[in-house]
Amino acid sequence: MEVQISSSTKSFAGKQLICNFESKELGSKTSFSVYLPPTLDESKEKFPVVFWLSGLTCTEKNFIEKSGFQRFAAQHKLIVVGPDTSPKEIKELPYQGFKGLAPPDIISAWSHLCTYTPPPTQLPGGLNIEGEDDSWDFGSGAGFYVDATADRWKKYRIMGGHGALICALKNPGLYKTVSAFAPIANPINCPWGQKAFSGYFGENNKEEWKNWDATELVKNYNGPPIEILVDQGKSDQFLEQGQLLPDNFVRACVAAKVPIVYRLQDGYDHSYYFIATFIADHFAHHAKQLKA
Amino acid sequence: MEVQISSSTKSFAGKQLICNFESKELGSKTSFSVYLPPTLDESKEKFPVVFWLSGLTCTEKNFIEKSGFQRFAAQHKLIVVGPDTSPKEIKELPYQGFKGLAPPDIISAWSHLCTYTPPPTQLPGGLNIEGEDDSWDFGSGAGFYVDATADRWKKYRIMGGHGALICALKNPGLYKTVSAFAPIANPINCPWGQKAFSGYFGENNKEEWKNWDATELVKNYNGPPIEILVDQGKSDQFLEQGQLLPDNFVRACVAAKVPIVYRLQDGYDHSYYFIATFIADHFAHHAKQLKA
Repeated sequence: MEVQISSSTKSFAGKQLICNFESKELGSKTSFSVYLPPTLDESKEKFPVVFWLSGLTCTEKNFIEKSGFQRFAAQHKLIVVGPDTSPKEIKELPYQGFKGLAPPDIISAWSHLCTYTPPPTQLPGGLNIEGEDDSWDFGSGAGFYVDATADRWKKYRIMGGHGALICALKNPGLYKTVSAFAPIANPINCPWGQKAFSGYFGENNKEEWKNWDATELVKNYNGPPIEILVDQGKSDQFLEQGQLLPDNFVRACVAAKVPIVYRLQDGYDHSYYFIATFIADHFAHHAKQLKA
Repeated sequence: MEVQISSSTKSFAGKQLICNFESKELGSKTSFSVYLPPTLDESKEKFPVVFWLSGLTCTEKNFIEKSGFQRFAAQHKLIVVGPDTSPKEIKELPYQGFKGLAPPDIISAWSHLCTYTPPPTQLPGGLNIEGEDDSWDFGSGAGFYVDATADRWKKYRIMGGHGALICALKNPGLYKTVSAFAPIANPINCPWGQKAFSGYFGENNKEEWKNWDATELVKNYNGPPIEILVDQGKSDQFLEQGQLLPDNFVRACVAAKVPIVYRLQDGYDHSYYFIATFIADHFAHHAKQLKA
């Protein structure tokens, strides 16, 4: 598979790349971002990788333009990969193509509706799937990180897990550390999740739903110890609407003795201003876990 | 004049506001951003203000979403005001409306073509001036910070100076510190400036042009000492095209004995990745000058 670097921009002495490739599985072009920290070229050590999974309505650009993460990726010497998070191919990401890129060591993600997004015309899409653009919170603009079983969406079964939490919980030992901003923590019990899972799995297949729900999965987690960091804005409109349900997840973590640091941040909403404020803490968390 | 706060978002423990008002002068609605650092509400001291003037194609949003400045504004306790930089009203900015807002103490700006911008449909405009949207680098999307004398643009004669450098050089003592990213430093000698000044002042009025050119102005600067900080990406395509001409400005500063720190940053371009990388240094510069 051929990967093209469509742009390379110097950032905090490293490089912010945007790459794209033709996905055979999807029959469509898809993009991802890669941040390469400084000294990577000269270094003989392998650098860990953070995968950042954006949320509803995001492309691969929101995070790299608005979070300010590069400052901390450079500081902690972390490679950061951010796929376009509409429901597309991730398994094909050829990370071995970049010198020094280690297997996935970290995953950091959040289920995030970007308050400051490009208009719908700029969203990914163009996959020519019936209904892909019917709705802003399902289809081409909305990745739920599930392996869809419904016929129409079957091609999208590649992204592992429902965001970062699901990736870590379903693949014990694969990721060394995980964190999330304002995740949809219990999708089977919220309107967004129910809509998405009805579409991706079928309305009556509710046992399958549980295999893609962080709160359900953590109940049975028995992999290596992981410490989960979750930041949640207290003034997040989607928290208020009952779309996120972090309390359910925290309760399940406590019952399952999975350590979680849950920080309810007073006055913050669901925007990138919230992400940018606390992104330094998430990178410090990952750097610390990697050294542990 | 009535100012409406259209949004208020918590950011680094402070508040990022977007405000708008009906400008009588322009007969149009216009916007500006204000960042209020934490502790402003409880504090009895006055906080200095940084004015950030964006460049070609920017609105009031680019800087507040992409530069990551809030981290440093919070740290140094600086209020930051960012007008929509299309050619609109600034004199009316009612900064006395915000508690603790001091008169302009700082100005930090750059003449910047945003590589990652909203599409033209999102640009400001709608001023119903003949020709305002004919060109991406002149008119509604492009503020040159001049007091236009040409009839068609006369209503735009409010913004003082050609970007930050001009504001500081034309108003000795009004601003305590100034810095710029990749400024169009000698507009009368570059294609962008010549196009703009021909439009705003008339092609034959070249003596007036000099009154709005930083390189010309610094030759005669005799105000209080100021130390100018300029960062310039060495891989900036507009530098290569001869649009920015910082060397002319530096030479003029040296001849006029105006201290300038000019940093040609290897490998950086004209994007917000460049701004974000060095924004911390600019805020540190201003904080230091304010304490001097």
